[in-house]
Formats: sequence, structure tokens, C-alpha cells
Amino acid sequence: MPEVSKRGIRMPESPIRKLVPFADKAIADGKKVFYLNIGQPDLPTPQVAIDAIRRIDRKILEYSPSDGIRSYRVKLEKYYRKFNINVSADDIIITTGGSEAVTYAFLACLDPGDEIIVPEPSYANYTAFAIVAGAVVKTIPSRIEEGFSLPPVDKFEKLITPRTKGILICNPNNPTGYLYTRAEMNKIRDLVKKYDLFLFSDEVYREFCYTGAPYISAFHLEGIENNVILVDSVSKRYSECGLRIGALITKNKTVRGNVLKFCQARLSPPLIGQIAAEASLDAPDEYLLDTYNEYLERRKFLIDGLNRINGVYSPIPMGAFYTVARLPVDDSDKFCKWLLSDFSYQNKTIFMAPASGFYTTPGLGKNEVRIAYVLNKDDLATSLKILEEALKVYPGRTH
Amino acid sequence: MPEVSKRGIRMPESPIRKLVPFADKAIADGKKVFYLNIGQPDLPTPQVAIDAIRRIDRKILEYSPSDGIRSYRVKLEKYYRKFNINVSADDIIITTGGSEAVTYAFLACLDPGDEIIVPEPSYANYTAFAIVAGAVVKTIPSRIEEGFSLPPVDKFEKLITPRTKGILICNPNNPTGYLYTRAEMNKIRDLVKKYDLFLFSDEVYREFCYTGAPYISAFHLEGIENNVILVDSVSKRYSECGLRIGALITKNKTVRGNVLKFCQARLSPPLIGQIAAEASLDAPDEYLLDTYNEYLERRKFLIDGLNRINGVYSPIPMGAFYTVARLPVDDSDKFCKWLLSDFSYQNKTIFMAPASGFYTTPGLGKNEVRIAYVLNKDDLATSLKILEEALKVYPGRTH
Repeated sequence: MPEVSKRGIRMPESPIRKLVPFADKAIADGKKVFYLNIGQPDLPTPQVAIDAIRRIDRKILEYSPSDGIRSYRVKLEKYYRKFNINVSADDIIITTGGSEAVTYAFLACLDPGDEIIVPEPSYANYTAFAIVAGAVVKTIPSRIEEGFSLPPVDKFEKLITPRTKGILICNPNNPTGYLYTRAEMNKIRDLVKKYDLFLFSDEVYREFCYTGAPYISAFHLEGIENNVILVDSVSKRYSECGLRIGALITKNKTVRGNVLKFCQARLSPPLIGQIAAEASLDAPDEYLLDTYNEYLERRKFLIDGLNRINGVYSPIPMGAFYTVARLPVDDSDKFCKWLLSDFSYQNKTIFMAPASGFYTTPGLGKNEVRIAYVLNKDDLATSLKILEEALKVYPGRTH
Repeated sequence: MPEVSKRGIRMPESPIRKLVPFADKAIADGKKVFYLNIGQPDLPTPQVAIDAIRRIDRKILEYSPSDGIRSYRVKLEKYYRKFNINVSADDIIITTGGSEAVTYAFLACLDPGDEIIVPEPSYANYTAFAIVAGAVVKTIPSRIEEGFSLPPVDKFEKLITPRTKGILICNPNNPTGYLYTRAEMNKIRDLVKKYDLFLFSDEVYREFCYTGAPYISAFHLEGIENNVILVDSVSKRYSECGLRIGALITKNKTVRGNVLKFCQARLSPPLIGQIAAEASLDAPDEYLLDTYNEYLERRKFLIDGLNRINGVYSPIPMGAFYTVARLPVDDSDKFCKWLLSDFSYQNKTIFMAPASGFYTTPGLGKNEVRIAYVLNKDDLATSLKILEEALKVYPGRTH
């Protein structure tokens, strides 16, 4: 048998995925499992999107343009203007989810051996997409003690080599919920300018910023307009993960030209998804407001609850719908697995994401977990109770 | 400004794409353009698929499993059994179109510098997907004089090096419509066995074989079950190009494990597309029969018509809905462009695909075009008339 690729072997297996069989087993054993492990919102998709799908009236489900349906891209201009992001339809390329936007951004900008710098903990699949492009991800740890704020600039500068082509940020951040301040964004801008780098900015959680401070997009940074590649997706803001509709936005024509070639090779993004995503832009204001308020309340409830548990600490996340919490355990991979296979409280247990998957520096995140608040408050209350009881009896408790 | 990737610059620009602005201009100038240039079927999508979309009744459009919805994969078992392709749901991974299946097959099996051998003319985007994987495509010309049959085995053997990892075939073939015989498939099998290669087999046109001879899938070849990676798609058989639903099928567990990691990184294939594709399996027998009969008639009509034009020659394609025809012209890129920008007959013209985009050997296909019979017979008749009149006056006519 011919050998498979070394690249494929090198692709990381997510620690969350490794736990799925244990969750399945727990359910098969009759336990109720609360899923706090993934970013699948439990809130409804806008009705206008469902209605648009139900109204599909075509004889042929044809290819759409490789860069996306024009009317959708034009409508997005107005959406972005609400956030003072001034882009034109021509700057926007519709992709198959944010995943494809990141992949094509890397393929279009990075050659094998090129390097990007990413603050960690960070979304695990960036590494996977970098492997596809043959690019090297260098990470700088941010620290829970500092609320996961931007690591000092000199730590970035120490990592910069002649092969460094870009910095990648996720803002608001998955997994930490951190939101970069204006001062931090200016530091990133100065670095990008000084070293002439690409700034890959994943802003899919833009709608969910809870501090009242103005949201700073990479496109708000002056003087680096041609360096910014924004990644977006309708998955989180409209609870439309299944549609696979994202976007890659850049004012850099040369990058767009390159990206478009990859888009043309795969012919087109999903047609029905684009129709639903376009309709979602007409969702009533209450839709996003209700969603926002729900997450806001859950955030307060969850973080308060976590910090009340003996030995547990969570910073207050400023955005998205995740937090990274520190637990008094020897190894969160072991603890999360133990919760699923060895523990239950009133025949219930919880599935959390071990933070190890969000770090590439070995050993980091060993006593941290990511919790997604994609369950309602009652379920979050039960989950907190389960965590509290579990920590009382977990054999690997540290203090 | 940072430099874009050399990989992106290397990505080929399709000669068809280059002509699109000229077609747009022709339309803007009031001409009617008959599109014979792309594989977008004009036949209707099955009504059951449209109905399934219109019946969507969900509150949340969630992620589906990374390898696709299980019930769809189980239903596909039965579909493949009709073609004596004995695969189980576990062998099937649902992808975002056939494009993603080819890309992930390459990423999972080939490392940068690894080589695959492809008979040409061939689907241009294979080269694009190989560039994504950093793999090298080596082509062997098949000849119009021989009806585009499989090139002799010794030509394959001459190209084999220690880096050769696979052979790729498209069967029935895009762009030629050629269908490999049992004898040819056995030769491919022997090569694959002798050199321990992967066999990437793109079989998206399986429904459209017109010779009555039994269809030979790569999965019918004995002794190479673990070498075969089948690429499939619902785009062509159900006129569902916009759904972006394909499949990668292999009995090789190690390959599947590798592919699955790429699938997990991009989270999931499109949800609505899968629902429609699953429903399509319930299309009445008449649906595929009507489609088949329509293409069968058009094929006869088109090929007869082409061969009746002075100086034009087309072999009789045995499958798919394309033919590659030889024209009495100096350069089919120039001729196709001239048709759009300088010619019209009764204010009408045609858009054909220059064959140069389907060859990598320089100079080949210079007097060939690909014609997709995705128009009804009346329009094909008009198209043939336009071609005949055009050839009478084209300044670069050779004989």
C-alpha cells in the first residue's frame, strides 16, 4: 500500500475530538451530558433565513459566482458600515465558511516555510490550515493572570525572522473571549507597519462585545489598509454554522487576485447558504439584540458561578461566548475525560474542552479548560453544580 | 506591501475565465451568446430535492458531522450498489463538492514534490488542487486521432520516478467524453499494482455512459481496493452544482484517517446541500432516464452536426456531456475570442472552451475546443450554424 502524506500525519488531532467517544459512551450508559465543549450556538437562526430557504423557487440549483453572489456582497457593504468598516462589494469574496477564508488567505499569502505569529491560546484549526499551506505558526503565550491580554511587543519582535509574513489575531478571541483594546490594536498596527506584514484578522465574533468600549476592527487601523485580510462568517452571529458561508475581505488587489484563483478552482461557495445569509441581513434588530442580551446574561452567570467554586478562576471575557478557566486539577485532558467516563452527579455530567488544544507551547493550558456558554442559564447552573461536585472528588485535584 | 505567495502566482488562470469579459461585452453589445463553455447542466434539479429544501423545518442550522450526515451516507450505499460498487457508509466521506474531495485526496496522500500521472487533456483544476498540495502533475497526451483512448502503458512507465505516488483518471472523461474500456482499466490496475500507487478516480459523470458497455469503476478492479480513492459529486447527475456536495470514497483506512483530519479542520460540509442531495436519491427512475435520453440525443445531434462542417472533426464521446473537437483554425484561444468579440451571425455567437486549458504539454490542443452539450437541440442547431458560418470567414482558418 502506498504511504499517506507526512503532512496528513502531522495534522493535529483535537483533544476535544478525542473525548467525543467518551461522551458518546456516557450517553449510551444513560447519563445526561451537558455540552460546553464546542462553539455551536443553541440560539435560533433568524426566521428570515429559514423563510428564504423555504421559499427557494428555482428549477436548477446552479453554480454561483466564484467570489459569491453580487447582491449579497453589495448588501454586506451596509452591514460593515454599521461597524465603521468601509469596504466595497469588490473587496469581499464569499467563502465556504470562515475556514475556507483562513485557508485561502494562507494559500494566497504564504509559501511553504513562511511564518506567521499568533498569540495563544488560539483557535486550534489555524494550525491545521497553516499545515495545508506549508506555513509555520509561531505562538506567543498570553497569560490567564493577565486576562489573556496582548503579549508585549518585544515578544513578537523576538520571533520575527526574514520568513515572517504575518500576524494572526482572533478578535474577540476564541477561546479566551478577550477583546483587544485600541492601545493593543495600535501596537499590532505598528508591528505590521514596521515589518511590512500581513494582518490576518478573524472577527467572526464581532457582534458579541460586552464592555461598551468601541469595537476595534483591523480595518480601523490607519496606514495598513493593504496589509489587512479580514476573515468573517455568518456561523456564530446568526447561528448558521451549517450553511458554511464566510468571507475574506481585503483592499489588497494582488491578494484578492491570488485568492480568486483558489476560489475559481473550487468553482463556487454554497448557493443556498448564500441565499440564507443574504436574507439574514434583514433580520429585525431585536434578533441580534436578543442574542446579545442572552449571551451577556449567561456570561455574568457563568463567570460568577465559576469564580465561586473553590479553586476555580476565570477572567471576565469581554467578547465572544467562551471563557478559559483555570481549575485546581493536575491535567485538564485527564479531568475532562474523567468527567465523561468516571463521574456523574445525579446521573449527569459535563463535556468541556481541555485548553491544551489551544496552545502549541508544550505544557501550557494543562490546568485550563475552555467553556462555551451555548446552553441556557438553567443548564449552565446544573453544569456549574456538576463541576463543583466533580472537583470535590477528582483524584487529581491539586489544591 | 508584503509579497503574495509564489504558489498563488503559479496557479493557472483558465483560458475559459479569460474569455468571460469578452462574452460579457458581447452581451452588453446586444448579441445573443450560446454558452457551450462550461459544465453547468441546463436540465432541472430533481423536484424532490427542491421540495426537501422547501420543507426545511429547523430552528437552528447547525454544523453537520465532519464526514457528513450518517443517514445520507447510509443511503449512498444502496446507490453505489446499483453500479456494483460495494462500499459501506464508513468508506464514504461527504465533501464540499468534488473539488474538495480531490483537494483532500491530494493533501492526505501527497507531500510537496510527490508526483501523479494524469492522461491529458484533463480537467484543468486538478493542476490547481495539486498546486495547493505542492504536488507535481505529469501528463501523458492522449490523441484525438485515437479518440482519446488510454495512452500506451510504456508512456506511463517512462514517467514513473521514486516520487510517483499515483495515477489520476476522470472516467467518463471531462473534457473528452472518453470512457475507459475493461481492457484499459485492467492496464491501469496492473500499473497501480506493479508500482504500488494510489488511483484517484473521478467518476462524477458515471450516470452518463452511452455505449451500452458495462461501466467500469475503479472499485471494480480487483487487488487494488486499498489503492483506490474515488471522487464523486451530485453536481452533474442531479444538476445540483450550486449545492457543493461531493464525496471521497476509499476502503483505505489510513487514507480516511488522514482525510478526516482535514475535514474536521473545516468543521462540516454544507447542511442544506446534504439534505437536498439525500432527497435526490429518491428521485423517480424517470428523472435520470429522461436526463440520460436527453444527453444521448444531443450527443448524436451535436457530433453529427460537427462532423458535417467542412474541416471539423469530433470523435464520438462515449460518456459525460462534452466533446473535444478539432477545428481548421490556427489557434483556438484566438478563434474563441474572435467569435465573442469580432463575429456574429444574425447577431448571435457562441462561447466555446479553448482546449489549451486542458493540456499542460505546450502547443497541444491548439486547434481543439471543448463543447459542452448543456443546451437544448434548437440552441445546439443554432450554435452549429454559427460555428459553420464563423469558420467560413475566420481570418486564421488553416485549411
